[in-house]
This record gives sequence, structure tokens and C-alpha cells, in this order.
Amino acid sequence: MIYLDHAATSNPKPATVVDAMMHFISDGCANPGRASHPLANAGARLIFDTRQKLLQFFHAEPTAHAVFTANITESLNLALKGLLQSGDEVIVSSMEHNAMMRPLRQLEQNGVVVTVIECDPQTGIIDVDAINAAISATTRLVAINHGSNTFGTVQPIAEIGALCRQQNCLFLIDSAQTAGCTPINMSSSNVDLLAFTGHKGLLGPMGIGGLVLNARAQDANITPLICGGTGSNSELEIQPQTLPDALESGTPNLPGIAGLNAALDWLEHTGVDTINQHEQCLTAQLIAGLKQIPGVSVLGPAADQPRVGVVSLLIDGKDNGEIDEQLAYDHQIYCRTGLHCAPASHQTMGTFPNGTVRLSVGAFTRADEVQCAIEAIAKIASN
Amino acid sequence: MIYLDHAATSNPKPATVVDAMMHFISDGCANPGRASHPLANAGARLIFDTRQKLLQFFHAEPTAHAVFTANITESLNLALKGLLQSGDEVIVSSMEHNAMMRPLRQLEQNGVVVTVIECDPQTGIIDVDAINAAISATTRLVAINHGSNTFGTVQPIAEIGALCRQQNCLFLIDSAQTAGCTPINMSSSNVDLLAFTGHKGLLGPMGIGGLVLNARAQDANITPLICGGTGSNSELEIQPQTLPDALESGTPNLPGIAGLNAALDWLEHTGVDTINQHEQCLTAQLIAGLKQIPGVSVLGPAADQPRVGVVSLLIDGKDNGEIDEQLAYDHQIYCRTGLHCAPASHQTMGTFPNGTVRLSVGAFTRADEVQCAIEAIAKIASN
Repeated sequence: MIYLDHAATSNPKPATVVDAMMHFISDGCANPGRASHPLANAGARLIFDTRQKLLQFFHAEPTAHAVFTANITESLNLALKGLLQSGDEVIVSSMEHNAMMRPLRQLEQNGVVVTVIECDPQTGIIDVDAINAAISATTRLVAINHGSNTFGTVQPIAEIGALCRQQNCLFLIDSAQTAGCTPINMSSSNVDLLAFTGHKGLLGPMGIGGLVLNARAQDANITPLICGGTGSNSELEIQPQTLPDALESGTPNLPGIAGLNAALDWLEHTGVDTINQHEQCLTAQLIAGLKQIPGVSVLGPAADQPRVGVVSLLIDGKDNGEIDEQLAYDHQIYCRTGLHCAPASHQTMGTFPNGTVRLSVGAFTRADEVQCAIEAIAKIASN
Repeated sequence: MIYLDHAATSNPKPATVVDAMMHFISDGCANPGRASHPLANAGARLIFDTRQKLLQFFHAEPTAHAVFTANITESLNLALKGLLQSGDEVIVSSMEHNAMMRPLRQLEQNGVVVTVIECDPQTGIIDVDAINAAISATTRLVAINHGSNTFGTVQPIAEIGALCRQQNCLFLIDSAQTAGCTPINMSSSNVDLLAFTGHKGLLGPMGIGGLVLNARAQDANITPLICGGTGSNSELEIQPQTLPDALESGTPNLPGIAGLNAALDWLEHTGVDTINQHEQCLTAQLIAGLKQIPGVSVLGPAADQPRVGVVSLLIDGKDNGEIDEQLAYDHQIYCRTGLHCAPASHQTMGTFPNGTVRLSVGAFTRADEVQCAIEAIAKIASN
């Protein structure tokens, strides 16, 4: 098997991730923050430690908070629904995933104004001046997909962050495809809210994600999406106001947090810069190889433009589903075909409604695997 | 270590739970429903299979749906916020957990009317006639904690379900303390919505829970709490209306679902009746032993009343926190002290605001461990 579906989830995970989870599934299992015995305390310490590692990893402000969710979809819903009220405007790019657009379309029914900035149809890159021109007195939030899960486009978050600070809007990024693959500095990029998922570039398990809130985001007093037991202020039937408890209710996913903690250690030891360089090389190799094949079009930014290791392609006269099936069953190459839950991005790039064939590399992908994929695509294209 | 904190989370889990999770954390990891390669398909099949097992386990209607959440707190928030609108009345017991009360107090701010039925101050049992008397033309839902996490009280859900059907209200149960410990038959008890968590009596991992919806609950068209990518209808920026997709967005917790699947197999093989009998015996032993100790009060229903394996106690003249610490550090007995995120239940039973010391048994608890706990409490009480 050659796994080139890292944009959906990374595979494999570092061995230490599996080991760390085991302990909290089997003999170390206890509910953190709900008791004071040693087993519960060990879970509570692990959670505290993981929050600290996340703040360091994303270069958040010292006063920032990391709250856990089940996945980045929940993180985005929490941020958007917790912040936006009727009459508020939110500005997004035309490259967003449905994890952003579906909650926003739901909020639109309640009077939130959603403004979509069209991105470049060749590269998918947003025009920061167009964001500036769109910002109005009611703009509360600019919410941007950092790295496209369909075409690999990376947006200029530092420029957008500076603009948002200047214009006094909050700035939220969807880091689903960039966290762990591209260095992210929330402080220098003026990111107020960063939504992340644990199971893609962060190399943790499925089932854990979160939201990092810098000071300005904390001041916005996000309304919780989910209320309930927090192990704190148990005498009250109203949700506590203090973070992280205000936005985290119910028993946490302790095995998931343990896996993420170990993954963050692995990433720190390996270095995101190293991973980024590795994935950039593989992506350049993949794009260069694919471009040599007659009948194959590679879409999205060039290899030397800001991008992540996600490559979308089409083959003249071939059905995407058929290509996908031949890759999986004739060549044991696993990828993903279609609209990738991001119809807006395909509309932007002219590949709606048929979508594309997407190959995505990861931290453990090897150059020989990329070469096999190029040869398989060449074979399919020539038949 | 003697672990008597099963009401917080069960420990240990069956060995098969750990094994099943391993596969989907390491080499079997792929994003189900987001691609069509064999690895993604295996995940999708596992999810389908787990849904089917849940419907069988809870004796749901053949047309029922099981949707996954991160924990029962999310399940309750989803049901309550998805169903109740301004002007609707919801009836609850005075024994609810904050996972029920905190979302309801939040909904109260938006015009939902919350009616609390006082339960018996000795046993915590609700008076079904009082529910009947309280039901009005605007009562949309009766939402009841099936088994109390503080005193072990089990409510008569079959009677309440029959009443709700007759009065044309929806009926939701919080099965946090009963699922896996007490047989539950949604069909014969007329339960429309069952919220469950995977990590307590169901013996799965933390991080997975869900909501089972019978036909009447499906007809109610619950508004999703979280919208986003579902791997279906990807061309649309609005949430699909079909279940389970309508209420499940983003990458699922595949390792968690795998663990729950294995746990359901273990439960089916062992039999919930067997587990129930085992826990009832241990609880009777615990209550009988504690009642012999001078200065110890045991609260809640008697051993022969409907109950789960949760026992709350007080020791005359002793501080609960001190008892907890002595149990944990002098006797290596792990339990939980305080209000247990259920202040209403302590107000009902007269133990607010100091709460109680709670010992809770599980499927793997042994009689000799219960005996040690009784002896430890006797020693603490006599000092």
C-alpha cells in the first residue's frame, strides 16, 4: 500500500503516539478533574501539559488558552457560533471547507452576514486588498482556511492578521492542513483564534482537536456550544465563565489527548521546519513528474509558491472515480477523489462539480512512493 | 489500588477494547466515508457495524438511528438544543446532572420553560403522577436521568415512557450510569431519545458517546449543533438532512468507535443481566457493610430498590475531602467526593453544598475489594 491520503488523516502515526494512548485506555484510565485520587490527578496533569505544549507549538501569547474539542469541525462551529450574532459580518475566502461554510450558512439564517472574497482561479490565493476593501463597520471576524485541502494553496496569514489588527476585527484560521506541516506563529501573525485537528499533520489520533484563543479572543467571551459538567463550580447550574472550563464540558477524550501530547513531542523533536522541507520536496517531485505526463493537468499553486503537500490533478478524458479505483485496486495507491467537502474551492478553480483526483503526502511519505504514484498516473493516462 | 470510581469512568476495559483501538490508531488508520480506498472502506464498515450493534443493544426500533458524539454531555446538548425552542416546556427530575441542567439553564435564557419535578428526599425516586400533573399543552419533552451518578437511584423509565406516549411528549433519557449496567429496552419503555456515553458501563474508551433516535425523535427534525463536512452531499454548503449525516460532522473518532464496538461485543457475550446481577450483589454487600459501621450514614435507595452500583455516604464529624484523601493515600482506594457535577441531586437529598463520599462499583470489581473498602471506612470512622 502507498498511502497518499494524508490530507484526510495521517498514516502511520509515530509509535510513541500509540504507546501513550495505550496507558490511558487500559490501566491508567481515570476521569481527570473529577476526583483527587492519583489516577485522576495523572490525567489532569497530562491535560495541563498538553495545553502548554499546544501554546508553545503555535507560538501563542503567554496568556492564551487551548481548549479541546473532538475535531476541527467542532472547533470552527464553537468559534463561529460562539462569536457571531445577528447583524455581524464575517469575511471568508472562496477556498473554504464545508467545516467553515456549513456553520456559516446556518448562521446566515439567523442574520449573520457572510461575505466571500473570490480567490485567484489559478492559484487559489486570496487578495488581501480585497479583504481590506470588504471590511465594514459590522465586520466582526475574518475567518480563513490557512492551507487548502483541495489544491494545497497556503494563504498569507501574517498579512491578513496585520490587516485585522489594524481594522479591529478578530482573525480566525482553519489550520486543518497546515498545523504540523508549516510553522505557524500566532503571535507574529496576529492570529486571535486558531482551530486545529489532532489527526492530520499533528500526527495524533482521530477524535481530538481544539481551539487556541489569544487575549483578544478571550475578551470576546465566546458562548459555549456545549454546556455541562466541568468538574468546577459544581454547585452552580450555570456554566463557569473561566477558561478552559467555560468551553469544555463533559469527560474529555483522555486517550486522544495522550496521543496528541506524544505527537507534539515527536514534532518538536523532529522539527516542523524539517517536516515542511521534506513535504515541499516530495510535492515538487510529484508536481514535476505529473507535468511530464501527456494529458495530465496539475491544478493549484506552483511547487515554489506557498503551499502544502496536497496536489489535485485531472486526466483528459478520464473519469475521476475511475482513476481513483485504478489507483487503489491496480496500484494499491490510496488517495481521494471528488469535491473533498470543499465545493467552494472547486468552484473557484473551475473544477466544480466533478472535482479532482487528490494526492497528498505526509511526514512519513518517501520519494520512491511518490515515484510509484507518478508512474501509476502515467500508466492510467496512457490507457 | 482498589478502583471504586466506576461512575466517573470504568477501569479496566476489556482487553479486546484496547486491541481494537490499536489497529485504527496505527496501520489501519484512514478517514472513513471520505475516500473509497480499502482502508477508508474498512473504517466506514466498522462505523456502520457499531451503529447496528448499538441499536440492538438498546432494543431500538428497526428504523432507529445511532449518531456518534464525543460524550454524553454533547449528546444531551444536541438533543436539548436541537429540539427545544422558545415557548417549549421541558420537564426534568430534581436528580439531574449538570450535563442536563447547564444546557437547560442556557436555553431558559432563550425562552424555554424548564419545570423541575422534586424527587423523594430519601430515595431520589420521581413521582410519575407529578410528571403527569405537570405536563401542559406546551410540554415538548420529558428528559430524565435514568440512574443517578450520586445516589444510585434508578427512575421508572417504562412508566414515564408510557405516560409521554399517552400525552404526546417526546421522552429523552440520560443513560450515563445505566447503559451497560442495567438492561434498557427503548422500544418497550417508549424511549424516543437515548443519550449514552461509551466509557462508563459500556466499557469503551473516553472520547466517544452518542444519541439513539427512534422514529418519533427523527420526525422532530433535530437542528444540528455542529455542521460541516459529512462526506455526503459535498456539492452543497448546507447541512444534509438525512441521518446520521445531519447530526454528525467532521472526522469521526474512529479509534473510539472501534473500542466501543469491541466493548459492545464483550457486553453481549457476558450479558448485561449478568453484569447487573454482579453489581447488585456488590452494592448490597457494600451497603450492608457500611450500615454496620457506627457514625456512617448511607444515603439513597435501599439495596433492594431499583438502583445502580453507586453508593453515597457520610461519616459523622468527618470532612468529606479528608475521608477521600485517607481512602486514596492510606488505603489506595480511589473514589470521588463532593457534588459530582449534580448539585440538584444533593439539594434533593439534603447533602448540598458539602456533598458526599461516593463509592461506585463496576463489571470487574471483586467482593474482596468491596470488603477492603468497608474495612477502610470503618477504620476512618473510628479515628
